[in-house]
Amino acid sequence: MNENAPSADTRPSTINHQLSTLPGGVTAPQGFAAAGVFCGIKATNKDKPDIALIYSTAQTPTVAAATFTTNKVKAAPVRISIAHLRNATTRAIIANSGNANACTGKNGLAHARRMARAAALALGLREREVMVGSTGRIGVELPIEKMETTISQMPQALSHENGASENAARAIMTSDTFPKEIAVEFEIENRRVRIGGIAKGAGMIDPNMATMLCFITTDAAISKAELQRALSNSVQRSFNTITIDGDMSTNDTVIALANGASENAPLESASPSFAIFQNALDYVTQRLARMIVLDGEGVTKFVEVVVRGAKNARHARHAAEAIANSALVKCAWFGGDPNWGRIMDAVGYSAARIRENLIEIFYDEICAVRNGVAASETPFSELEKIAQKKEFKVTVDLHIGSAEYRVWTTDLSTRYVELNMGE
Amino acid sequence: MNENAPSADTRPSTINHQLSTLPGGVTAPQGFAAAGVFCGIKATNKDKPDIALIYSTAQTPTVAAATFTTNKVKAAPVRISIAHLRNATTRAIIANSGNANACTGKNGLAHARRMARAAALALGLREREVMVGSTGRIGVELPIEKMETTISQMPQALSHENGASENAARAIMTSDTFPKEIAVEFEIENRRVRIGGIAKGAGMIDPNMATMLCFITTDAAISKAELQRALSNSVQRSFNTITIDGDMSTNDTVIALANGASENAPLESASPSFAIFQNALDYVTQRLARMIVLDGEGVTKFVEVVVRGAKNARHARHAAEAIANSALVKCAWFGGDPNWGRIMDAVGYSAARIRENLIEIFYDEICAVRNGVAASETPFSELEKIAQKKEFKVTVDLHIGSAEYRVWTTDLSTRYVELNMGE
Repeated sequence: MNENAPSADTRPSTINHQLSTLPGGVTAPQGFAAAGVFCGIKATNKDKPDIALIYSTAQTPTVAAATFTTNKVKAAPVRISIAHLRNATTRAIIANSGNANACTGKNGLAHARRMARAAALALGLREREVMVGSTGRIGVELPIEKMETTISQMPQALSHENGASENAARAIMTSDTFPKEIAVEFEIENRRVRIGGIAKGAGMIDPNMATMLCFITTDAAISKAELQRALSNSVQRSFNTITIDGDMSTNDTVIALANGASENAPLESASPSFAIFQNALDYVTQRLARMIVLDGEGVTKFVEVVVRGAKNARHARHAAEAIANSALVKCAWFGGDPNWGRIMDAVGYSAARIRENLIEIFYDEICAVRNGVAASETPFSELEKIAQKKEFKVTVDLHIGSAEYRVWTTDLSTRYVELNMGE
Repeated sequence: MNENAPSADTRPSTINHQLSTLPGGVTAPQGFAAAGVFCGIKATNKDKPDIALIYSTAQTPTVAAATFTTNKVKAAPVRISIAHLRNATTRAIIANSGNANACTGKNGLAHARRMARAAALALGLREREVMVGSTGRIGVELPIEKMETTISQMPQALSHENGASENAARAIMTSDTFPKEIAVEFEIENRRVRIGGIAKGAGMIDPNMATMLCFITTDAAISKAELQRALSNSVQRSFNTITIDGDMSTNDTVIALANGASENAPLESASPSFAIFQNALDYVTQRLARMIVLDGEGVTKFVEVVVRGAKNARHARHAAEAIANSALVKCAWFGGDPNWGRIMDAVGYSAARIRENLIEIFYDEICAVRNGVAASETPFSELEKIAQKKEFKVTVDLHIGSAEYRVWTTDLSTRYVELNMGE
């Protein structure tokens, strides 16, 4: 699927009439420049940039919001970014691939700080106005001197042109097969507002995700607190439905910068304008999340798992994640086998409250299981037709309550194992 | 590893001087006969028996103890056996492969009852004196008439000879590549006592186990309550360290029968004799558990994961299971890669309390990680040498408390995926 994954964006879009997409990624919003350059952090990959810089050139104050991994083992750049997020303003994001700067102790913290300082020096900012991200190998020290030299020259590479965002997107790629970027435009009180984003994922999406990095820019005028509220909402509805909470990598980071260049009246939550902004931000994060799933290592199928009729949201989530994380279920999907017995099994060992004889299972709209047993009217071949598609939906109705949860997941292929059997 | 898995039993044994092994499996204890015959439950496999019968021929009363799946979706034979376990005495176990009789609703319950009744009729027992087990496809009805005919003729096939137990072991095999049986002999107050067992596992061992069936016989004199106590202890120390609690299949069943034919004074817990019996039963269940792991689908490595220094046993278990269930960790092992970064990541997202800078990780006795970072004295090649062995131990010391937990697990191979991509 990786070969044609970029075509994912051409499927019927859920975008509404208030929202249009445009090129330019993180440089689409006014007052943002980006760069992606080659430093040589990993010996290989001479062609691929490995340090990304995103910079707000706006005169108006730029604020940041962010969400980080819940893993108790946190990489140094995550710890430094958490500290820097406390600053009132944030002007830049510096990030590298090739080395995660994780499990690197005190030296790692010093190195992450030096990355921020190098970018701050180059751009005339304070160190605390720079956020940091890293992805790549765990447990190896960064070649920090070399990186400082490269970063010092990066302002020359900064650009507002379309290619700059793609360069930055490429610079954070690890085993990703295509750069992930998107930008949207919409109106708030007759002002044109834009949101752009880049991301990297790859690795297994779940249960044990490779590092996910996502950097978002917007020219909306919005306070730091309101931006954080909107971002947290969006992450909950996008990246958190593909990364299982508590199963995150040591480096996962989502950062949003808002520079107010569109000069709209500052967005207040509960206002109609905030809802329009939230909707656009949801669109951006969901499209990037979808690209991450489609570009998962060895992925051949995209599966939406919906559990409904659960006692409460937590139960719905337990059941959905048990299905999406079952190696047996995922192997069956890889083989195009609609093995609903394995889905019953996963629901049964999940922490969700169930009554076996109430369970219904659907492949797309076709009923596979009713009252906990095979739906007699459905020939197996019909279910197979669906399970053999590249993309389908599995719905489990527990008929216990009214809570629902959705997960986006993939199959588990022989290629996935091959890709992960050595670093 | 499957090719040479039976050799697993030749490695240095932990058996103590009070215990010796002998052939005969479930027929080694006095007063037990077994049979495994072909019925044709699944169209294929003309050579392989598919119904097993174990029968206590002793004049003394035979009692049963059992543990069953914790999956909330329970197969019909599990529900019937739970009911029959309430009976004071149990004389026989009837079990089939090829069809799990799971997710089969009311018809499935009627069929499981008919299996017990057919065996009871053939042996002159009451239906409630017969336990039932099934393994194989989920969601398909049993060919019950054909099975009743076969079962009615099974008493003729019953035998005390050594081959009989192996036939029974073969009859419950699904994708297992070798029959699993063991028997031990020991002395209690100058009486010779024996315990025998057969088992089937295969499928993935964890996180989502294929059905595990284990049938144990002993000629010890022991009450139903004391037998249950000993069996529950043993299962906790064997099958439950390879099957993750709450992740069990719909059909998992361990049944022990004790017929008192050795005429020892009935075993009382807290007595020295009970401890000898418990030790022998632990040995039997651990050997069978080990065979199940070694025969897991596509398994090429056997890995013991020990987490120590945890705050409490629950935390130790969370961390050990997170490591043992991590697809990324298991893929690395398959490739002989001692990727400790993935182990750190798994420990970090587990529910265990940790402090990153206290964590130590060992491959066998070689330190890979100290204070949360790479152990500087250990060349990576030394760790690789261990990870490339067929069998090794990973120890994680959290240095938070003193609790410990052990899990037996495997790698995740391309062959595993191939074996599970279609039913």
